[in-house]
Amino acid sequence: MSSQPSAVAESAGTAAQSAGTADQATYLGRLGARIAAVGTTLCLGVDPDPEGFPDGFGRDVRGVEHMARLILEAALPRAAAVKFNLAFYEAFGSAGIAALERLRARVPADVPIIADAKRADIASTAARQAVAIFDALGADAVTLNPYLGRDALEPFLAHTDRFAYVLCRTSNPGAAEFQGLETAGQPLFLAVARRVAAWSRDGAPVGLVVGATAPPELAQVRTAAPELPFLVPGVGAQGGDIDAVLAAGPAAAGIAATVRGGALLVNVSRGIASAVTRGPDPVGPMAAAAEQWAGMLRC
Amino acid sequence: MSSQPSAVAESAGTAAQSAGTADQATYLGRLGARIAAVGTTLCLGVDPDPEGFPDGFGRDVRGVEHMARLILEAALPRAAAVKFNLAFYEAFGSAGIAALERLRARVPADVPIIADAKRADIASTAARQAVAIFDALGADAVTLNPYLGRDALEPFLAHTDRFAYVLCRTSNPGAAEFQGLETAGQPLFLAVARRVAAWSRDGAPVGLVVGATAPPELAQVRTAAPELPFLVPGVGAQGGDIDAVLAAGPAAAGIAATVRGGALLVNVSRGIASAVTRGPDPVGPMAAAAEQWAGMLRC
Repeated sequence: MSSQPSAVAESAGTAAQSAGTADQATYLGRLGARIAAVGTTLCLGVDPDPEGFPDGFGRDVRGVEHMARLILEAALPRAAAVKFNLAFYEAFGSAGIAALERLRARVPADVPIIADAKRADIASTAARQAVAIFDALGADAVTLNPYLGRDALEPFLAHTDRFAYVLCRTSNPGAAEFQGLETAGQPLFLAVARRVAAWSRDGAPVGLVVGATAPPELAQVRTAAPELPFLVPGVGAQGGDIDAVLAAGPAAAGIAATVRGGALLVNVSRGIASAVTRGPDPVGPMAAAAEQWAGMLRC
Repeated sequence: MSSQPSAVAESAGTAAQSAGTADQATYLGRLGARIAAVGTTLCLGVDPDPEGFPDGFGRDVRGVEHMARLILEAALPRAAAVKFNLAFYEAFGSAGIAALERLRARVPADVPIIADAKRADIASTAARQAVAIFDALGADAVTLNPYLGRDALEPFLAHTDRFAYVLCRTSNPGAAEFQGLETAGQPLFLAVARRVAAWSRDGAPVGLVVGATAPPELAQVRTAAPELPFLVPGVGAQGGDIDAVLAAGPAAAGIAATVRGGALLVNVSRGIASAVTRGPDPVGPMAAAAEQWAGMLRC
């Protein structure tokens, strides 16, 4: 394991310089190749919420799968990665997960897939969670919740060909309730950032989820963890600050800084999906929205 | 909402005195009736891990569903509640969730079901998680992770006929990494306990997950939140201290204290499932193990 970081460094560096020869054995290698190919940090969130569908679109599991296919058709060509939040499929039970499995199969192998699952559990259970996310669903990366501590994430981190984004400072209005509590002179979210950075230095394939809705905190996290790749939700419907994200989002040191765009991924879900319109061309307006977002997030 | 606590108090009190007339409109009413009927705080964890199966039992999704049915057959009659950790079914994708749905349908309506899911997300997503757990699966209660703050749990808490156990001090070896950080003179897990107690006083149907593996912390949490119902994992395979659980586990004040056994639930998963044996009567040894656990957890 001690030789892992330098091996990753070589592959990620290669990816940044030449997309065609990227090391496919690491997530950062695959992500770097895709970012280089599309020239944007746009991560496409495929999170179809039937409550947001315009009239004329079905709100059952078939309608949700149909909408997700339209979103992929419209925006996948412009996206550096695809993020599925599992809740939007789990809401339909086994039929929803079956739909997610079909959708996942529509994403080509060169586009990294992030399972936004926010998992963590005691180790024997986390091992089954990792099987669910990495084997059954075949995701390249996952989001994890740090509250239980590293040992509750270890079965995910042991997959050095995959990646885990650990929740740090989330984008919801009440994020500071616990994340903002002072712990030994720093807020909890910075303590998490520094611990996860230490895990990364130990060879664990980890980054952070940091919301775009709190720019000062985003900048603090970048200072505390200059080398960690960030997944940033909260632009678009949640009102996050794009300029602040583009300033503090890219990694400033280490392997991730050698990946184009600093290995930053900025997620947009409703900002694209809400452009859908009933009529002969539901995809066109979403494709235009994706094009616009990809441009704003150019790298 | 302000009249909720006294209404619950009446129903839970009734449940404690007479199982037949319990108020079925609240989780604590239903739980109290069931605890009174079986006279134990045993919560049956149905978490079939194929790695722990003896030879002769299938390790695919059919084998897992078969094992779960054997566990239910053996131990359901002695259990105050049933807890399914979703990871053991999610590991098989949509086929695993379909198995879970069939298993859930085998649990009679008078036995409360807890979905051990450890969820939380921004509100629009948490709303879909609540649909998945409370509507699609039809669980009576859920486990939630506090890291994102209360607004990320609100769609669950809005279901006043259901219940949420919030992770406080977990049972894994590394639980203290973040939960033990000092925040304003108290460890984070006690800050969580006190916040959740405040939510409860506001009418939210909440309790805490507190592991049996750290008896001093368990006692501290009980002192900080005398009125909250506890779900306690970590006895059995994880080596938790039963005497400490029976001392500090029952609620000492408020509505929960009027429920038989102080509304405590002590989860046993592997401690029962590991008794399974290949042969003509795989259920008998598990039933004996359940009988023994129910006796040790008598109330």
